[in-house]
Amino acid sequence: MTEFLLHARLACDTTMVGRFPLSLLLLLNDSRYPWFVLVPQRPDITEMHHLCEADALQLMRESVRLAQAMELAFSPDKLNIAALGNIVPQLHVHHIARFRNDVAWPEPVWGQLPPKPYDETRRCEVLMRIRRALAEQGTECSCGA
Amino acid sequence: MTEFLLHARLACDTTMVGRFPLSLLLLLNDSRYPWFVLVPQRPDITEMHHLCEADALQLMRESVRLAQAMELAFSPDKLNIAALGNIVPQLHVHHIARFRNDVAWPEPVWGQLPPKPYDETRRCEVLMRIRRALAEQGTECSCGA
Repeated sequence: MTEFLLHARLACDTTMVGRFPLSLLLLLNDSRYPWFVLVPQRPDITEMHHLCEADALQLMRESVRLAQAMELAFSPDKLNIAALGNIVPQLHVHHIARFRNDVAWPEPVWGQLPPKPYDETRRCEVLMRIRRALAEQGTECSCGA
Repeated sequence: MTEFLLHARLACDTTMVGRFPLSLLLLLNDSRYPWFVLVPQRPDITEMHHLCEADALQLMRESVRLAQAMELAFSPDKLNIAALGNIVPQLHVHHIARFRNDVAWPEPVWGQLPPKPYDETRRCEVLMRIRRALAEQGTECSCGA
C-alpha cells in the first residue's frame, strides 16, 4: 500500500498549521489573503469523489470547522472554497478569506498577481489567530509540523 | 420564515437539470465546459459552514454523486469544484469538467473569456448525458424544471 506523502509543491508553498483527524491544515505563503489548504492524508487521491464516503463526509466536517475558525479569526466578507488541482493533482481544498478591499476582489484569486510572501512577524500572527480560533471552538486539530 | 428562491442571476445563466433532496442541479450556459451548479434550497445562506451539519453533509453527498455522474458522462481530465460567491452571494457550488485541451487549461475558468452559450442541440445532448449518468448510478435526482 502506498503511503501518504505531501506533494512537494504544496510542501514548498505552505507552512504546516496542524492536523485534523483526516487532513493536514496548511497556510499558503501569500500574505494578500488568509489562505489555508486542507489535504486529506490519503495516498493517490485526486478528486473528492474518489474518497470513500466516510472520508468525504469527514472532509466536509473539517472544512466547516476551518471555515468557522477563519470567520472567527479574520471576519472576512466572503470565503472562497475550492478543489481545483489542474496543476498539483494531489487532492487539496483551498479556503481563502476574501475582503471587499483585497487586491483581487471580486474575482477569484487564482491567476491574478504573483503571491506576496509573508514576513515572519505577519506569518506568526496569522498562525496564532487561526490556532486560537480553532482552540476556542474546541476543534480537534493537533498543532505544529 | 423566508422561502428559498433561486437568485435571479443564477436563474438567468442556467438551465434546470433536476433536484436532489437538498439542492437544485443547474447547467450553466457555457458550452466551453460541462459546468454544473448545485444550489442548496435553503433561504439566505451564503456560506457552506452556515448550513446545519446535516445539510452540509448532504451537500457533500450530492456533490459526490454529481461528480461521479460527470466522470461517467464526460470522462474529464479533472473536476474543478468551488463555492465562491463573491458576485452572486446565494450559496452555489460550481462543478466543472476540465480537459487538458479546453480553452482555459490549466487555469481556473473564471475571468478567462466570455461564456460561449449552447446551441439547442448541444444543450440537449449535455442534459441527456448527465441525466442518463445520474440514472445509471441510481441517484435520486428528479428531472426537469
